[in-house]
Amino acid sequence: MTTTIINIGDELLIGQVVNTNASTMSRLLTEAGIAVRRTVVVGDVYHDIWTAVDEALRESDAVLVTGGLGPTKDDITKKLLCDYFGSELVENTTALDNVKRIFAARGYELTPVNRAQALVPRCCEVLNNDLGTAPCMWFARDGHVLVSMPGVPFEMEWLMRNRVVPKLQETFQTETIILKNILVQGIGESFLSDLIEPWETALPDNVKLAYLPVAGMVKLRLTCRTNPSCPTDLTSLTEGLYTLAGQYIVGEDCETLPELLHKTLIERGVTLATAESCTGGTLASRLTALAGASAYFRGGVVAYSNEVKECALGVKHATLEAHGAVSEETVREMAEGVRQRLRADYGVATTGVAGPGGGSPAKPVGTVWMAIASADGTEAKLLHYGDRRQQTIDRTCNQVYSDLVRKVKSKK
Amino acid sequence: MTTTIINIGDELLIGQVVNTNASTMSRLLTEAGIAVRRTVVVGDVYHDIWTAVDEALRESDAVLVTGGLGPTKDDITKKLLCDYFGSELVENTTALDNVKRIFAARGYELTPVNRAQALVPRCCEVLNNDLGTAPCMWFARDGHVLVSMPGVPFEMEWLMRNRVVPKLQETFQTETIILKNILVQGIGESFLSDLIEPWETALPDNVKLAYLPVAGMVKLRLTCRTNPSCPTDLTSLTEGLYTLAGQYIVGEDCETLPELLHKTLIERGVTLATAESCTGGTLASRLTALAGASAYFRGGVVAYSNEVKECALGVKHATLEAHGAVSEETVREMAEGVRQRLRADYGVATTGVAGPGGGSPAKPVGTVWMAIASADGTEAKLLHYGDRRQQTIDRTCNQVYSDLVRKVKSKK
Repeated sequence: MTTTIINIGDELLIGQVVNTNASTMSRLLTEAGIAVRRTVVVGDVYHDIWTAVDEALRESDAVLVTGGLGPTKDDITKKLLCDYFGSELVENTTALDNVKRIFAARGYELTPVNRAQALVPRCCEVLNNDLGTAPCMWFARDGHVLVSMPGVPFEMEWLMRNRVVPKLQETFQTETIILKNILVQGIGESFLSDLIEPWETALPDNVKLAYLPVAGMVKLRLTCRTNPSCPTDLTSLTEGLYTLAGQYIVGEDCETLPELLHKTLIERGVTLATAESCTGGTLASRLTALAGASAYFRGGVVAYSNEVKECALGVKHATLEAHGAVSEETVREMAEGVRQRLRADYGVATTGVAGPGGGSPAKPVGTVWMAIASADGTEAKLLHYGDRRQQTIDRTCNQVYSDLVRKVKSKK
Repeated sequence: MTTTIINIGDELLIGQVVNTNASTMSRLLTEAGIAVRRTVVVGDVYHDIWTAVDEALRESDAVLVTGGLGPTKDDITKKLLCDYFGSELVENTTALDNVKRIFAARGYELTPVNRAQALVPRCCEVLNNDLGTAPCMWFARDGHVLVSMPGVPFEMEWLMRNRVVPKLQETFQTETIILKNILVQGIGESFLSDLIEPWETALPDNVKLAYLPVAGMVKLRLTCRTNPSCPTDLTSLTEGLYTLAGQYIVGEDCETLPELLHKTLIERGVTLATAESCTGGTLASRLTALAGASAYFRGGVVAYSNEVKECALGVKHATLEAHGAVSEETVREMAEGVRQRLRADYGVATTGVAGPGGGSPAKPVGTVWMAIASADGTEAKLLHYGDRRQQTIDRTCNQVYSDLVRKVKSKK
């Protein structure tokens, strides 16, 4: 069974919005054993949507469409689907009750614009959208299915999880897909590829390996399509990988390094505090984005100015004077200061020149110091990145997350 | 002139990577007056890439392809383009010199896998990739152009800016497109649509309006395609919008609220410090992601635990005991504490229940207090959001950014 995803919206084609819907939908479908063959983005243009829908229904069993269902004037999907399936718009009771329920709960008055959201093509089945007023519409024809959903990310995600994916699994025969992620850090993609070639070449035919390099880390993804004649145990498969590249492997079965660190700190029951200069709160924000971070995260200081490094972290004025903000001495005092003041088991710190300004011959843009302080003492490390600000922030964070996972795991 | 973007990669189709390349490319093309008709994602599958390339070359003047050029085994684009254009792979001197240069600069030895990156179809023109080893290839046939670029985001972006867009502008006749963003906050999309309908209906034909709702804010985007017979001054066009909805307009000509606040604080020459509980560093990280934030950003405290609220911000133990961490009294002391301790003109604070755990009948998940402290005193506000953690963090940040922009701008 294959699917095509169509995301509609001018905002996507002019690059003002990143299309997270396609990745969320692809992930949910993949986890459910449903293969995505293609994703397409078109603008709010009748002819372009029509062509995309028509092509997709020819090549895929199911077509999932988002966008163009809002109450505003630039939304034309519903009219088009009505024409495409040779139907007419009628007010749907289920959809209208839903619109009324949501407006009542918010204490708003129902306007004609909002009531119009309950109009749907007569030939479709309405799947109730508990989180919003735009309806989810299921069309079936000649063994193919088209589902139209709102483009609002959280509504779409809820509908996919609770309505669309379960109904697709009932309607079509789906495969079992097993995925395994292995997070590797400290080696570039091409060197990793050379190193693990013997193992990669020997992988069974139903297992696919992909390299996903992100900000100084490579995520290796194993995808395995199982069927009764060739079941595969992915854990035993990875033994050969550990033999060749074990020193670079940070962990498994997480999507990102913050997730891996989050899981590791919770498992070990230890606490963390952060002192950030060049990463500016990013180290902390990627951990606190994860539910349950309060179990280990004590807090952090974003010490952007030197004065804050002194008053909030206790970095000595003499240290800053003698060595500067971007130095081994400063980063050590930052890590130790935040660990002590915020009473955490681990204190981590970053200070560097993220750029584009602020570089000097001795400390060019991309120079970063990081440190990890614990009861065992403090370790500092000098990093050299390039002149891309966000890349330097991202790579620094990934280096800190990786080193801290390794350090915490190495404690018996 | 129209373009189609094709991004290749299994990682996109299984949803492990968000396709930021499509939005970056679309934005750069739009800014250069080149319309994007469609973007397509396909996997590392020969037949699917072939079909996408073939369809795109029929419908668009230029086709821009990313991905599948790395040195690893899952990359097949180059072989396919060679077949598609009936050419053969040859070692290209420009590309080889570039690979050698990059390896020499990094102090690495050139492996056969890396040397193979200099192989390109004989019929293409190589556009030099200063930032990486994968070549950028320009194919021209029958007035249509296909460009193949690496999928690594910063390499692609550099190539687009420095090689591809300028060459497209030389090769094709391009339109002038004027864009204007207006950031609106404090009103929902459908109410805004009703409110500004008279103005929207009267817009000239060559001006398009789009609503882009993001985390409690609506970005209005005006797109104007100009030609000599109908030039349009977008500033005078927006006067009617201000008359109808001026109270909700936070600012113009920025993509995001952090950018608008960044610009406003720099213009006014005032400083900021942040005290974050439920937003966990996100308020700070979105400002420090912008180059030049050190001009106004003193620093911040991520006060996740109560102890840190006391020791790092000076929130009184008695206040936390009597009112709890999520309370008006606490958020006021946080904002005032961080303003005073970090010596900033403005101190902002957030504390709330981001969820999914930690709610109570009196303070359900989604309850957030925010405050802004300045020389004029402190204002606190109670916000009610839902049970989606990231949404609560994002909406809280957008409310703080908006309120602070309004407050700073209101000072004479």
